[in-house]
Amino acid sequence: MFTHRRTFRIEFGDCDPAGIVWYPRYFGFFDAATASLFEAVGFPKRSLPARFGSIGFPMVDTRAKFILPSRYGEDIVIESRVSEFRRSSFDVEHRVFKGDTSGNEVLAIEAWETRVWVGKHPDDPEAIKSRPIPDAVIARMSAD
Amino acid sequence: MFTHRRTFRIEFGDCDPAGIVWYPRYFGFFDAATASLFEAVGFPKRSLPARFGSIGFPMVDTRAKFILPSRYGEDIVIESRVSEFRRSSFDVEHRVFKGDTSGNEVLAIEAWETRVWVGKHPDDPEAIKSRPIPDAVIARMSAD
Amino acid sequence: MFTHRRTFRIEFGDCDPAGIVWYPRYFGFFDAATASLFEAVGFPKRSLPARFGSIGFPMVDTRAKFILPSRYGEDIVIESRVSEFRRSSFDVEHRVFKGDTSGNEVLAIEAWETRVWVGKHPDDPEAIKSRPIPDAVIARMSAD
Amino acid sequence: MFTHRRTFRIEFGDCDPAGIVWYPRYFGFFDAATASLFEAVGFPKRSLPARFGSIGFPMVDTRAKFILPSRYGEDIVIESRVSEFRRSSFDVEHRVFKGDTSGNEVLAIEAWETRVWVGKHPDDPEAIKSRPIPDAVIARMSAD
Repeated sequence: MFTHRRTFRIEFGDCDPAGIVWYPRYFGFFDAATASLFEAVGFPKRSLPARFGSIGFPMVDTRAKFILPSRYGEDIVIESRVSEFRRSSFDVEHRVFKGDTSGNEVLAIEAWETRVWVGKHPDDPEAIKSRPIPDAVIARMSAD
Repeated sequence: MFTHRRTFRIEFGDCDPAGIVWYPRYFGFFDAATASLFEAVGFPKRSLPARFGSIGFPMVDTRAKFILPSRYGEDIVIESRVSEFRRSSFDVEHRVFKGDTSGNEVLAIEAWETRVWVGKHPDDPEAIKSRPIPDAVIARMSAD
Repeated sequence: MFTHRRTFRIEFGDCDPAGIVWYPRYFGFFDAATASLFEAVGFPKRSLPARFGSIGFPMVDTRAKFILPSRYGEDIVIESRVSEFRRSSFDVEHRVFKGDTSGNEVLAIEAWETRVWVGKHPDDPEAIKSRPIPDAVIARMSAD
Repeated sequence: MFTHRRTFRIEFGDCDPAGIVWYPRYFGFFDAATASLFEAVGFPKRSLPARFGSIGFPMVDTRAKFILPSRYGEDIVIESRVSEFRRSSFDVEHRVFKGDTSGNEVLAIEAWETRVWVGKHPDDPEAIKSRPIPDAVIARMSAD
């Protein structure tokens, strides 16, 4: 699968009184990383309604394992890829790397997401309904 | 003018590595306090589209003066009122109080907002347009 | 185990362009709910350093399953309890309920946390080290 | 004065149900922009305690005027500079630019900050005290 890497700068306001990133922020970074992954293969989130009638891919299940903390002023790299496509849902994996004191990358966090591809419900404009993931999306993401 | 008070609990995640509330959070509290002010006089934000065709009151100008910091585990009280209505814009004032060691309320922050009452633009569904503030809103807010 | 319930008001700013709560916010609510659970049994987070030399209980693993979305102006109830204590780590379970149109509570989210009880490292003031969870904490949480 | 420009990508989670950036987020961007301004002249925020005994520059007064909204997927540029130094406080100005449909930069927001340079209080380790701004900081920022 296509793998995308994006660097995030940890800001002062991302950190808590313990001086480390307040963990809910990481889920914000992961949401941005998934959006960047789709943008990198040609499907920026804002283009989805016009191209596919999709209004996004809300989260249904997510998990993160925190191995090493980060502090403000540090840069982290989030490496993201789709690990599996099903008919109307898909899984994303994120791995967060940071530099150690020798300049090597070390694994700081692992995270998993299950999202569902949705459009407006045909019978209720306020509701949403799962949709088959377009072949074009699967094809582009499946490239190495 | 009608004055509304709402208590906010300061959470760990609202605070930064200096151990005090990260100031952008206060603007989030103020936005919630203004929504509560409108709800308290019978106009919850979610009711505005159906009742008035309004889609909200975005911020055009805001300022805050920070006098005393707050820490997690503390409760603050935000006292809010509209200070002036114009044709399609209005001003809100917030004062943040916290308890001192003697149990008295002390002023911790003063803030001001100018917001504009808007609806969808008649010629462009993606755009917004200022609208006259409904008389009913002004009447209820103007009560003591 | 002791179970604690806390109501959270969903604010406009908690919601995203799809009109529903942006899921990273829920992890912020869960962090606040866990802090409230400890406060409810007599151990507010800010008291931990002086009482136990603990500087908190950072997250090591968390997962959430999202069943029903919520919108601004709604209230959700988060029911939280410790599900297991080990020597220096423990698990928390959260269940989020919201009212359905008949006024019944329906399950909207399930979430799990594994946290570790930590204090300052004896050899490095910048670092942290896991510590045994105090008996008093386990005793109070284990009450029904 | 030295002027620094930094680009910020607007993420889905920065936006509210009206589809535009929720204004409290901008104050988070401004706080990061001020930190970047200091880093750009050689004083990253994390270096301040060791170099100057300073523990930061908390906000005492801030204001923003919102001229044009932004949406997710857009990039904004924040241009920041110190506009005045006093003995222990200083003012920062931010201007937010975005591209218009012709590719020109247009002014979207203007913001102002007054911050105070602080260190630990000599008599109370929990408290802070204003400090004279170091000459080296003023000299570097005053370069064109």
